[in-house]
Amino acid sequence: MVTSAELPCPGHRACGNLEGVTELPNRPVCILGLGLIGGSMMRALHDAGREVFGHNRSAATVEAATASGHDASTDLVATLRRAADSDAVIVLATPVTTIEPILAAIAEHAPGALVTDVISVKRPVAEIVHRVHPQARYVGGHPMAGTSHSGWAATDPALFTGAMWMVTTEDTTDAADWETVADIALLLGAAVVPAAADAHDRAVAAISHLPHLTAAATATVGAGESDLALRLAAGSFRDGTRVAGTAPALQRAMIEANGVAVLNVLSETIDRLIAARDELRDHGTTSVLVDDGHRARLAYESMAQSPRALIADVEIGAPGWQADMRRQAHQGRVWLGRDD
Amino acid sequence: MVTSAELPCPGHRACGNLEGVTELPNRPVCILGLGLIGGSMMRALHDAGREVFGHNRSAATVEAATASGHDASTDLVATLRRAADSDAVIVLATPVTTIEPILAAIAEHAPGALVTDVISVKRPVAEIVHRVHPQARYVGGHPMAGTSHSGWAATDPALFTGAMWMVTTEDTTDAADWETVADIALLLGAAVVPAAADAHDRAVAAISHLPHLTAAATATVGAGESDLALRLAAGSFRDGTRVAGTAPALQRAMIEANGVAVLNVLSETIDRLIAARDELRDHGTTSVLVDDGHRARLAYESMAQSPRALIADVEIGAPGWQADMRRQAHQGRVWLGRDD
Repeated sequence: MVTSAELPCPGHRACGNLEGVTELPNRPVCILGLGLIGGSMMRALHDAGREVFGHNRSAATVEAATASGHDASTDLVATLRRAADSDAVIVLATPVTTIEPILAAIAEHAPGALVTDVISVKRPVAEIVHRVHPQARYVGGHPMAGTSHSGWAATDPALFTGAMWMVTTEDTTDAADWETVADIALLLGAAVVPAAADAHDRAVAAISHLPHLTAAATATVGAGESDLALRLAAGSFRDGTRVAGTAPALQRAMIEANGVAVLNVLSETIDRLIAARDELRDHGTTSVLVDDGHRARLAYESMAQSPRALIADVEIGAPGWQADMRRQAHQGRVWLGRDD
Repeated sequence: MVTSAELPCPGHRACGNLEGVTELPNRPVCILGLGLIGGSMMRALHDAGREVFGHNRSAATVEAATASGHDASTDLVATLRRAADSDAVIVLATPVTTIEPILAAIAEHAPGALVTDVISVKRPVAEIVHRVHPQARYVGGHPMAGTSHSGWAATDPALFTGAMWMVTTEDTTDAADWETVADIALLLGAAVVPAAADAHDRAVAAISHLPHLTAAATATVGAGESDLALRLAAGSFRDGTRVAGTAPALQRAMIEANGVAVLNVLSETIDRLIAARDELRDHGTTSVLVDDGHRARLAYESMAQSPRALIADVEIGAPGWQADMRRQAHQGRVWLGRDD
C-alpha cells in the first residue's frame, strides 16, 4: 500500500523507499505538438495500449488527430491541467524556438509533472528549462528518426522501431524519472542511448546537422549548373541531397539552436574540402579525402550492421550509475531495459 | 541488296545512300571490362536476345561470367578479332586510366569497329581516343546508373531500367553510329540524353563527382567525432554518405579524370559553406544556404517526378541534327527513339 505522498513523488526510487511502490505501467503520456515526431509518438503509444493525449495549436492538426481516433485538443491549459491530475509524463514535441511559453505554462499548470522532450538539441533545451521552470523534473530525449516530410499527415507509428533514442543522463539525473522516459522509448521499439547533453549536441552536429548543410550546398551547386545536369542526376545526387528537402524552418530551428557545435564541424568540413581542392589542383589526386571518407563510411556500416552490444551491470540509482551508463554508451552500447 | 563496301560502311546514312540498306537488329556487342556496368550490360543484352561477348583481364571474373552462361574471355586480341569479324559494337567499360592500351589494341585488331564507352567523363576519353586511335569510329556514352558496390557479383540486368544514358552528340558525330549506340541504351531500358562532351563533364562534376567529395567529407567529420556519434547516426548521415562507400579507386578514377570541372564546382561549394559558416557565426542563422538548398532539391524532385518530355522533330542525319538534339536536351528532354 502506498500513500499519495509517496506516489507520485518525484524520484521515489532515489529516496530508497521502494518497498511496496505500485508501478504505473499505464501512466499517461501528454504530448505537446503533434507534428511528425509527436504525432507518430501519439499513434505508436495508442497502438501499444498506453493512455495518451495531446495538444496542438493548429485546429486542423487536432481535427486530423481526432478524426483518426486520438485524444487531442487546442486548449493548452486544459491539457496541462489534465496532465497534472493524471500524473502524465509531458513530452515537448515542438521546435526549440517555441518551448519557452510552453514551459512557463507547465510551471504554472503542471509544476510537478515529469517533462521530457524530443528536440534535436539538448543543452539549449536544458538551459531554457532551467531558466523558465527551474523546479521542473526534466529528463531530455531525442529520437534519431525522421523523414524529410513533416506534419500529422507524415506520422507513422513505426517511425521509432529500431531507432536510437538518446536520453539525457547527467550526474544529477533522477533514476526513476530517467527510467520512466527510457521505458517510453523502449515501448516504441527504440534502443536507448544515454549521454550528457553536451556530448549529444556535439555528436548530432556531426552526424545530423552537418549532413543537412552539405546536402544543401550540393543541391544548390548541382541545380545551378543546368537542367541538363538535373536530368542526368542519379543516385549519388538523389541520396546526397535528400535531407535538403526538409522544411527549411525545421532545418534552421535545429541547426541554429546547436550553433556552436555546428560551427566546429562545419569549419572542419570546409578545411577538408579546401585541402582536397588543393590536392586535386596541385597533384591531380583526391586520395586523402576519398580514402578517409571510405574508411569512415565503412566504420559506420560496420557499427550499423553489427549486433548491438548492450549496456550491462549498471544498477540504476546506485552511486555513479549515470557515469557508468555514459561510459558504456560512448563505446557504442545501448540500453534495452533491465535484465530482470 | 547492299554491297560489302556499303555495309558496314561508317556513316552509311550520312552518305545518303539509304536505299535498300539491310538493318542488323542483332548486331553483336563486344564489352571490354565486365565490372558493375559492363557486366550488367552483358547480362541485360543477353536477356534481350542480343549476341554479346566480352573480355576481362581477371580470370576469376571471366569464370564467374562463363558460369552464368555468358560468353567471356581473358584473351583481348582474340576478342577484338572476333569483334572485327562480326562487325560488333565495342564498348569500353573499364576505368579511364586503363583505356589507352586497350584503344591501341583496337586500332591494331579492330580498326573499323564502332567504339563506344560507359566512362563517367567524356572529354578526356575523346582526347585519348583521338590520340591513340585517330581513325576510330567513336560515339561516347555514359549511363547514369550504379551502386556503391562493384564487380561482377554486383551486376544487375535491370541496372539501366529508367536510367538516363548520355550519348555524345558533337557537330561531327556520325548519324548512323549515334543511332546504333543510342539504340543499345534504349534496348536496356534507359532514356538517351544527347550532349556535347564538355557540357556533360560540367554536369556530372556537379551532380555526380561533387556528391562523392561532400559525402566523403561528411563521413570523415562524422566518424571522427565519437563512436557515440556513429551510434546516433540516422537517415541524414546514412543517405548523405552512402557513395563514400564506393571503392576508392573507382571514385578517384572518375573524379580525377574530370579534374578541371570538379575544381570549379568544388570551389563553389567551399564558397557557399564558408558563407554559411560566417552567416551562422555573425548572425545566428543559416537561412541563405538552407533556403537555396531546399529550392534546389525541390527543382530536382520536380524534374525527376514530372513526365519526361521527349525530343521531337529532329531528323537524324539532316543538317544541324546534332545541335537540335543538344538544344532540346538542355531543356531536360530525352530521346526515346524514332516515332516511326
